Amino acid sequence: MTNLVEALLAGDRLALSRLLTQVENGTQDGRSALNELFQHTGNAHLVGVTGAPGVGKSSLVNQLALHFRKHSNKTIAIIAVDPTSPFTGGAVLGDRVRMRNLAGDAGVFIRSMASRGTLGGLAHATSAMVQVFDAAGFDIVLIETVGAGQAEVDIARLAHTTLVVDAPGMGDDIQAIKAGILEIADILVINKADRPGLENTERALRGMLEMAHPVKRIFQHHGKFEIAESASDEQDNTAQLWIPPIQKTIATDGTGIPELAESIGRHASYLESSGDWSLRERSRLETELDALIQDTLTNQFRSKLPEEAYDRVLVRILERELSPWEAVETLMNGRHT
Amino acid sequence: MTNLVEALLAGDRLALSRLLTQVENGTQDGRSALNELFQHTGNAHLVGVTGAPGVGKSSLVNQLALHFRKHSNKTIAIIAVDPTSPFTGGAVLGDRVRMRNLAGDAGVFIRSMASRGTLGGLAHATSAMVQVFDAAGFDIVLIETVGAGQAEVDIARLAHTTLVVDAPGMGDDIQAIKAGILEIADILVINKADRPGLENTERALRGMLEMAHPVKRIFQHHGKFEIAESASDEQDNTAQLWIPPIQKTIATDGTGIPELAESIGRHASYLESSGDWSLRERSRLETELDALIQDTLTNQFRSKLPEEAYDRVLVRILERELSPWEAVETLMNGRHT
Repeated sequence: MTNLVEALLAGDRLALSRLLTQVENGTQDGRSALNELFQHTGNAHLVGVTGAPGVGKSSLVNQLALHFRKHSNKTIAIIAVDPTSPFTGGAVLGDRVRMRNLAGDAGVFIRSMASRGTLGGLAHATSAMVQVFDAAGFDIVLIETVGAGQAEVDIARLAHTTLVVDAPGMGDDIQAIKAGILEIADILVINKADRPGLENTERALRGMLEMAHPVKRIFQHHGKFEIAESASDEQDNTAQLWIPPIQKTIATDGTGIPELAESIGRHASYLESSGDWSLRERSRLETELDALIQDTLTNQFRSKLPEEAYDRVLVRILERELSPWEAVETLMNGRHT
Repeated sequence: MTNLVEALLAGDRLALSRLLTQVENGTQDGRSALNELFQHTGNAHLVGVTGAPGVGKSSLVNQLALHFRKHSNKTIAIIAVDPTSPFTGGAVLGDRVRMRNLAGDAGVFIRSMASRGTLGGLAHATSAMVQVFDAAGFDIVLIETVGAGQAEVDIARLAHTTLVVDAPGMGDDIQAIKAGILEIADILVINKADRPGLENTERALRGMLEMAHPVKRIFQHHGKFEIAESASDEQDNTAQLWIPPIQKTIATDGTGIPELAESIGRHASYLESSGDWSLRERSRLETELDALIQDTLTNQFRSKLPEEAYDRVLVRILERELSPWEAVETLMNGRHT
């Protein structure tokens, strides 16, 4: 075992910081460390926080971390994933703002990640960093993604519990976006709940919940959207069910944060008692295995293929002699030689 | 050659519609058709339209299509890519709204695409549909993406000309998103230009342009952000340069649409005269070739691997006996047998 891994497991924060950098940069040392660390993973509660721009995700994550630190012994890691370019500098600025409240607390560790070029790269690097935090013994890893596209959905798939954050007055276009993202939501948060338009936003979310979940099941639960606490709550013997609750918060003054934290804890209990925790673990690790297989195969193939052969085929595509599919067949069958 | 492909090349709209469905669903017939059609591609001007939710991209695309139809002989295809779920139904609704203005014009064809599961799938399916429209002889293909994440950036890479759309009063968080997306912008559009906050938005965009492009070069052009019309405009003999212009529009009443359309035409001329057109073609087709190689390798590998072997390795990962990387090595070396 390397010294850095040993130090990390012993709680050394500098070692953690160095390993995160190695892992983010995809170095050989980083990969070796991940291999060694992997056996120590599987204990952290991974919480994804996503939603459209402007809903106040960063403040919310900040407040959640503060709350968990004050009211529990849990240690918190925050990964802020910004799928836009490093060019913005936004992530770094965000860190500084956060550090004001959380600085000096060894039980909190914040890390920002900018784009790693491709989406696969970003999701993969995030997953690797989650593993490092998990092995380092952090109880909760909050993964915050900026945006509302496929990138965020993929990253949210890493999490055990996914919060989708909304705010009043975000416009119709964003409502449509949310409908897509709703499918991955375990908990819905309406932040900035003191803003005008709260009722409309709540109504829209409830409407989308009705579409996302069988109406009959929802209304079985005392006529409104509620969590089925256990299978015995239900008339029939169907499996235990989680209906995403809607939590209202004002992150700037902390309103609703205790209730949201409690809801997150309740979801963790639900996952464990229903068996969904291991299902999500399996799906997460299967996704990771598939991505690694894909990367490895592609790298192997390209390393064996002479650069000229690839270029020759590409020229034939550009001249419309070969379609891209025909080009792949040509390369695979060695007919380019 | 299949009848459907022949009919498409002869201008049959029903054949077009059927082929698009086959291609979107990735059927074997769709793939054969793409192989046959590929030699007829390479003529369309591919224009990407992206930007954060709520800026009015759909109305803008609609107005652009109307303008091109009224003031040129150009035929227009619109692909509306919604990386969120089919669950929303938003894409379909959008089509209906559009059809009101564009219905009955055989020179316009509109197609919506919802998520194809994975991002690679979405970008790949979009690229395939672009090829069908290109082969069918459409002069301009407008590719509209909803959102502002990596998905949109990847899809924008398909285009020769990328419009990044913004609107006043979209909030700070969105400004940060835009900074990332700015790198791919050929033309910046401030839509809803009658809204309060126009000056702030314009100032922010100009500021980000300064960061994205060498300030020295920008100020060479008469002290403000301008297009270098030709190399001779410049004092030195450096290559011809395109500085993204900022176009202000009010899509709801058509203000600024003629100027935007003209700007798009000017960019096409720039691409041709500078040689950038073929560079972008090359990069686009190389990306597509790489994605197809990756898919093919992965499918081949998985089809040869017994399902039990894969499952056994996955279980060993779940039990933390193997790290995902170690699992890949095990599978590659046939040590799972």
